Amino acid sequence: MRYTAPLRDIRFVLDELAGLKDILALPGNEEMSADLVEAVLEENARFVQEVIAPLNRQGDSQPPTLRDGEVTVTPGYAEAFAEFSQGGWQGLQHPQEWGGQGLPKVLAAATSENLNAASLSFSLCPLLTDGVIEALLTVGTEAQKARYIPPLLDGRWTGTMNLTEPQAGSDLALVATRAVPQSDGSYRLSGQKIFITYGEHEMAENIIHLVLARLPDAPAGVKGISLFIVPKFVPNEAGEPGKRNDVWCASLEHKLGIHGSPTAVLLYGSGKGEVGEGAVGYLVGEANRGLEYMFIMMNAARYAVGIQGIAVSERATQQALAYARDRVQGRAVEGSSGPVPIVRHPDVQRLLLTMRALTEANRAVAYVAAAARDHAHQHADAGQRAASQALYEYLVPVVKGYATETAVEVASLGIQVHGGMGFIEETGAAQHYRDARILPIYEGTTAIQANDFLGRKTLRDAGAVAQGLAAEIDKTLAELRRAAEAGSPRQAGLQLIARQLEGAVQAYRGTVAFLLQEAPKDVRTIFAGSVPYLMLAGIVTGGWQMARAALACERHLGEGSTDPFWADKFATAVFHAGHILPRAAAQAAAVQAGGVVSAALAGSLIA
Amino acid sequence: MRYTAPLRDIRFVLDELAGLKDILALPGNEEMSADLVEAVLEENARFVQEVIAPLNRQGDSQPPTLRDGEVTVTPGYAEAFAEFSQGGWQGLQHPQEWGGQGLPKVLAAATSENLNAASLSFSLCPLLTDGVIEALLTVGTEAQKARYIPPLLDGRWTGTMNLTEPQAGSDLALVATRAVPQSDGSYRLSGQKIFITYGEHEMAENIIHLVLARLPDAPAGVKGISLFIVPKFVPNEAGEPGKRNDVWCASLEHKLGIHGSPTAVLLYGSGKGEVGEGAVGYLVGEANRGLEYMFIMMNAARYAVGIQGIAVSERATQQALAYARDRVQGRAVEGSSGPVPIVRHPDVQRLLLTMRALTEANRAVAYVAAAARDHAHQHADAGQRAASQALYEYLVPVVKGYATETAVEVASLGIQVHGGMGFIEETGAAQHYRDARILPIYEGTTAIQANDFLGRKTLRDAGAVAQGLAAEIDKTLAELRRAAEAGSPRQAGLQLIARQLEGAVQAYRGTVAFLLQEAPKDVRTIFAGSVPYLMLAGIVTGGWQMARAALACERHLGEGSTDPFWADKFATAVFHAGHILPRAAAQAAAVQAGGVVSAALAGSLIA
Repeated sequence: MRYTAPLRDIRFVLDELAGLKDILALPGNEEMSADLVEAVLEENARFVQEVIAPLNRQGDSQPPTLRDGEVTVTPGYAEAFAEFSQGGWQGLQHPQEWGGQGLPKVLAAATSENLNAASLSFSLCPLLTDGVIEALLTVGTEAQKARYIPPLLDGRWTGTMNLTEPQAGSDLALVATRAVPQSDGSYRLSGQKIFITYGEHEMAENIIHLVLARLPDAPAGVKGISLFIVPKFVPNEAGEPGKRNDVWCASLEHKLGIHGSPTAVLLYGSGKGEVGEGAVGYLVGEANRGLEYMFIMMNAARYAVGIQGIAVSERATQQALAYARDRVQGRAVEGSSGPVPIVRHPDVQRLLLTMRALTEANRAVAYVAAAARDHAHQHADAGQRAASQALYEYLVPVVKGYATETAVEVASLGIQVHGGMGFIEETGAAQHYRDARILPIYEGTTAIQANDFLGRKTLRDAGAVAQGLAAEIDKTLAELRRAAEAGSPRQAGLQLIARQLEGAVQAYRGTVAFLLQEAPKDVRTIFAGSVPYLMLAGIVTGGWQMARAALACERHLGEGSTDPFWADKFATAVFHAGHILPRAAAQAAAVQAGGVVSAALAGSLIA
Repeated sequence: MRYTAPLRDIRFVLDELAGLKDILALPGNEEMSADLVEAVLEENARFVQEVIAPLNRQGDSQPPTLRDGEVTVTPGYAEAFAEFSQGGWQGLQHPQEWGGQGLPKVLAAATSENLNAASLSFSLCPLLTDGVIEALLTVGTEAQKARYIPPLLDGRWTGTMNLTEPQAGSDLALVATRAVPQSDGSYRLSGQKIFITYGEHEMAENIIHLVLARLPDAPAGVKGISLFIVPKFVPNEAGEPGKRNDVWCASLEHKLGIHGSPTAVLLYGSGKGEVGEGAVGYLVGEANRGLEYMFIMMNAARYAVGIQGIAVSERATQQALAYARDRVQGRAVEGSSGPVPIVRHPDVQRLLLTMRALTEANRAVAYVAAAARDHAHQHADAGQRAASQALYEYLVPVVKGYATETAVEVASLGIQVHGGMGFIEETGAAQHYRDARILPIYEGTTAIQANDFLGRKTLRDAGAVAQGLAAEIDKTLAELRRAAEAGSPRQAGLQLIARQLEGAVQAYRGTVAFLLQEAPKDVRTIFAGSVPYLMLAGIVTGGWQMARAALACERHLGEGSTDPFWADKFATAVFHAGHILPRAAAQAAAVQAGGVVSAALAGSLIA
């Protein structure tokens, strides 16, 4: 199945909603021209369409294999990774001083979406490497940066994140891997890590594992975890891969989806290799602050997984739409002389538009969040920087939580559009449904996102960011009403959007108020509502951005443009208001029923 | 993973909601005692737990194989099918005059749920055979019944339904398989059928295909389709399997789920076999009425698929609950001295209770529908029979449509409860997610159900059954209010249920009124809302039954029972009211936005 990068949709969000122009004008972006942006987007589209997208099905049907501790990836992956590296794509969003291109996050969001849409499994390798680069940039020593970042940036080496152990998944307090200091300042690590994405493969000369482990004298719990660099081959003095380190792939997981991505069990310290017993590791930053460092990266990694949700949604939507236009079956509901393409049937349209509306809304929210991050980094005004950073941090769990939960929904609807053919693996729709299912789980389950969202991002500032967001939505509502009253031929659509967005933002405000009020009284009740609150925020911020999209289309159409792009996008925004925004009240009701519900539940599940 | 038949939950629905006692008192049921019911349920539970459930994973990982046109099923399936047949399970709901046991449909619903929960893939063989038996009982000649029904009933032979062709899926007007009359009164069939469940296997001596095909002089479209019996081995005069007929399995599909069930492409008339060219077939009923006959069976088959949805939901819920009680991770939200089982975490409880609430609500609606069917068949009063039949027919698309869509949701939540382990195939949670995905597709997609629901079941009687149902819900609401006002210690829960059910039934009434009013004006708009209307009906009827369940528990608790079963079930009903019923308004809003939405959409999807 072909994939076509949705360049015009992406440009629309960048230009009309995320304010790319303002970002290009930020201090430090003097070298970024509109032409450069265009060239990056065009070349990214070409590369993912021609090189990566054709490998997606192959990754599913010919997953990596393990033999004698070495992993052979899906045929074609290594060549594609070499092209990816040579194209400089790994360095896109990293600093120029280390050889990167230092492009804005909002642009990296777009290229990353396309790469992931082309193949989630392939893209996980660069995604994890990005995380390692960011960690080292943030807390590595200058020597560590100089040693590891250039080869990671140019794709000679790749990176992994080693958090999970069999007994320590969401609960990192239980991490047991040990790190023993050596006289030369290095450490020796021993233990078992699981679920390590691209933990072993042959696409790169070296693999740099970032590993959470405990020092012998470390306190128990999360305050005794340190972060280590463990290279597969210990670099020699020249910085080239040297002795084979004592870290080994024991097995690969047999997973529901993302088959093309090798998920490894890694054993540290089994005594094999060329370094003696224990994997040679190097402390990153200070001892016992590993979890804190992981959290620095976490926002970026979580955001990246949210982008994966949008990516798989886009690809599933493209595939379902192509099938619906092609497959002829049944008469039109208002009558037709013969069978028609199923895209003409009302419920097939409802399915496709649900897919499209969720995808577009999530893309808009994610890019707006990335833009906030760019402002937070580079804006001249400190107050603006702080406000933008707070908005970004508020939106990260929304992007991760909502765009991944809805990705599962979108992929499932994609199967439904195909009918029986959707259930046949060769069709390819089922792969998206299997692939998407990991997204609400890894880099923190939806519940973990929701706890962060409620605890750190809402209660901690007494709802300040949330209320500020609601006030922004009010401004959009006022604009909608002005546009509707100006006698637009799209008045009914504008009114529907305004009515539904108003209901949704009321539900949102009421929920935030409820949570703030109940928090001191009943922590169990409010945390039973944390995921519904997160979903509510996803629905309402998506509705807000779709309303802004509708207003942008209204402007172009009002100026006399006859380009059908505007009318189509306007229609999608109306659909979102009619079919998605009404879900907000249901989520709000679930949150607010929390007290009665949790009181009724005592004991009903705990055996 | 073990499966335990939820006998007490099933008995609760049979006794307290579906009125089993009244059904046992119907004319014709004189031989059915409470003891018999108990014995059937107990033996069914034992059989599926010990014999079928252990094969479920094996069916997934060792699917049937095709070699030289013959299918070998999953190891263990043939032996299990022999035990199934010897136990007389195929005849459970079929008439005693043909060797069946003639048990009420409400009881067959329960045993069928357990069989399907044990293994969807295995159960599809008897499910299809049931359909063939019912078709022959309804429209077969006495000679056909005598020849085919006894061996189908005792499991020597099995049956299939052959509707779909590559170009004819939901649209049977496009069926192209041809049937040419022969001088001896038989027919010769040629053509290709796809997606034929258990279309070829070696578990039985013979396979009886019911095939839709066209006579040479048949009119075009659905009014030119006839129904034929095509046996794999043409029975000889003694009724034993004779010559190998010209129907052959060309391939098996590679599917997302239900791997244990062989899904065959069947070729009719390729000239192989022992009968010359063309598959020997026998007309069932009158020529050109095949689709009508299929529709007679359709309600039963669709109902059966709805039961499959409940079955996989129950199994996924059991598995997730067991994992959540076992897996230790993280502190309790109100504080704990160490990590706790994850079932203690509020969001894990929310996930599990969503699973449980949907499963219990769907079971209750389905069994109540089956009870209506029993009354429709056997009640002494003709008016009661007609009213019950109308209610049954109204509820069938609800059971099929809503219980299968929610089965996908429940299976997905089951993965989420497991976290990363849920994505690993060996855990088994992923299998339910893959298996469940076919349920909203086969035997008519959800959209097909919704069109039937809106067109034949709602507009045709001007909403009479729908309004009657709403009036019944009003009675339950009045009971809830009386119970709440009586000063129960569960007053807050009863009030929440009453408040949410009232809102849901209002949304339902308003939606039915809207659809009736718009139908003459804008057929496209109302059919764009058909699936949301169906989902709304599923939510509100589920909420109604959960409210009745809560009232039953309230009676037992009010009488002083300290059995935790009542408190748990009451809690689930409260949860359903707090978390599921609020979805009703969202579905109603989607229906009622239809006009604006469909006006805005012109051209946005049609390339």
